[in-house]
Amino acid sequence: MKNISPLSGRGLLRGALGAAAAAAMLSAAAVRAQEPVQPIEAAKVADPARVELGKKLWFDPRLSRSGFISCNSCHNLSTGGADNLKTSIGDKWQKGPINSPTVLNSSLNLAQFWDGRAKDLKEQAGGPIANPGEMAFTHDLAVDMLRSIPQYVAEFRQVFGNDRLGISEVTAAIAAFEETLVTPNARFDRWLKGDMKAINEQELRGYQLFKASGCVACHNGPNLGGNSFQKMGLVEAYKTDNPAEGRSAVTGNDAERFNFKVPTLRNVELTYPYFHDGAADTLAEAVDTMGKIQLGKTFTPVENRDIVAFLKTLTGDQPQLTLPILPPSSDTTKRPQPFE
Amino acid sequence: MKNISPLSGRGLLRGALGAAAAAAMLSAAAVRAQEPVQPIEAAKVADPARVELGKKLWFDPRLSRSGFISCNSCHNLSTGGADNLKTSIGDKWQKGPINSPTVLNSSLNLAQFWDGRAKDLKEQAGGPIANPGEMAFTHDLAVDMLRSIPQYVAEFRQVFGNDRLGISEVTAAIAAFEETLVTPNARFDRWLKGDMKAINEQELRGYQLFKASGCVACHNGPNLGGNSFQKMGLVEAYKTDNPAEGRSAVTGNDAERFNFKVPTLRNVELTYPYFHDGAADTLAEAVDTMGKIQLGKTFTPVENRDIVAFLKTLTGDQPQLTLPILPPSSDTTKRPQPFE
Repeated sequence: MKNISPLSGRGLLRGALGAAAAAAMLSAAAVRAQEPVQPIEAAKVADPARVELGKKLWFDPRLSRSGFISCNSCHNLSTGGADNLKTSIGDKWQKGPINSPTVLNSSLNLAQFWDGRAKDLKEQAGGPIANPGEMAFTHDLAVDMLRSIPQYVAEFRQVFGNDRLGISEVTAAIAAFEETLVTPNARFDRWLKGDMKAINEQELRGYQLFKASGCVACHNGPNLGGNSFQKMGLVEAYKTDNPAEGRSAVTGNDAERFNFKVPTLRNVELTYPYFHDGAADTLAEAVDTMGKIQLGKTFTPVENRDIVAFLKTLTGDQPQLTLPILPPSSDTTKRPQPFE
Repeated sequence: MKNISPLSGRGLLRGALGAAAAAAMLSAAAVRAQEPVQPIEAAKVADPARVELGKKLWFDPRLSRSGFISCNSCHNLSTGGADNLKTSIGDKWQKGPINSPTVLNSSLNLAQFWDGRAKDLKEQAGGPIANPGEMAFTHDLAVDMLRSIPQYVAEFRQVFGNDRLGISEVTAAIAAFEETLVTPNARFDRWLKGDMKAINEQELRGYQLFKASGCVACHNGPNLGGNSFQKMGLVEAYKTDNPAEGRSAVTGNDAERFNFKVPTLRNVELTYPYFHDGAADTLAEAVDTMGKIQLGKTFTPVENRDIVAFLKTLTGDQPQLTLPILPPSSDTTKRPQPFE
């Protein structure tokens, strides 16, 4: 394998750049600034106690009606922050309406959920708890549960400095934990930072093609997506049985029908199956479909493999988490009745 | 709180002991040797790579038909190695037949499952994977899944030194991981080892009563149980809707009807609800019922509280585990179809 400089991926843009700019590109920092993708940096933890509390809540199945489903059930941190199912399994084995998006790097998204109906992670975190098809609890019952457990009461008091223990504190703690779930140090990021050996020739060809073909029009920024809503089926209609309407369901604007938040491509190797309906089982299939319906382009098998090879360089360091030990229920904690 | 020596708990036996024996009891080691309960020691890990592989399998939901249920779903290591439900939730939300026993310290049991139908952890581990009401997979499909994932294939080869990757290797790795799930350093163990301040007066009274009342006849040894089968409802019949017949279902011997493996009392504060049918929600209720149906004894409220206080000293150090990152499925890995 040859050593490849970040510069060699930039031939396509060279014509558009003046001599001064080309010279500036010799520094890795300049390369980074000009690429449409930026590296992800490790999370800065401002309040470790809040994060630790959020981690407990994240793994606590008692936030569900059944006592069986936790945040981690559908956003499994052992499997790329998703569940690798077409659509998730909810309370009483209900079939979820849409593919579970990864929690990894979700703090970088412009909004949460496929249709962006939650403005941030805190707002998102309350959704599944009370969704009858997901955790099927209520915010009041979730808070009652937590208030019945002395260790939780003490920990909330310590973190928030008061005795309010409401859904706002619960979602704030979960969001604080989620904000730590970033995945720096992907091979591609190391390449962006100037490590010429971090990706190989095929992967670089894939990146060049990814840019030249227009994938990067939507999948850009540090999260390679997550920063805009775009129509699924721009050039050719996307065929699916999934009834999700996307952004129009939130805005009421019919022009935004089938507009979805562009999913991140970070760790995409881990977050199969793909698309809001989970219809694409493999990266090869996803790249093929995206080429056709978004770009009006049929990638050759070699091109497809090159892009897939590039996409696999986006797998970053997964969060290293110590599994939390949850405080036990007290005698007054209401016991879940999952079969009622 | 007064400092209390392990010796002060032994008044009941004092009359039966000669002067020489009484003198010997002045050493902590001698106390330990004479108590009917022994401390648990930390696990010695002979083969860390095998344990690490077993940990991955433990947390891998792809060992279930649905891709949703892992070993950890019902033996959750965040919640005392159990699921805190009366009976577990299986594939398609099926209601399990019996309360999920804790995996913690299960290596100390004489056999596995409530009825002891598996002779050891390795034999046990294959059960839930193929049980149609639990993970609902087959051993062949589980092995096919693992063989389709290059990282798993490489890891099995490294651990076992060969290319057999069958259910025997899968269960051996899971068992190796489970053997590490012991919980040393409970306050009661520290007391057993001579730390007189490790338990308080009430807890010591509880232990004395636990011994004097006969609880210790079945709940003894390092695991305070797990080492014999005993009839549920020895003095008075136990009323339950649960159809489990216990040991007789394994041996065919009708005299062993309603004989169950005595559950461990280690970490019992965390493993509610109690009994094979999960009918007792609280320790107070469990102690009350046990007194009546096993010992023909009605504990006073104070006695009950003392025993419960003692039982809570049995919570040991919970395993500190780094959540494993699972190798992704390959393009050839069969995708789960949980709703079919």
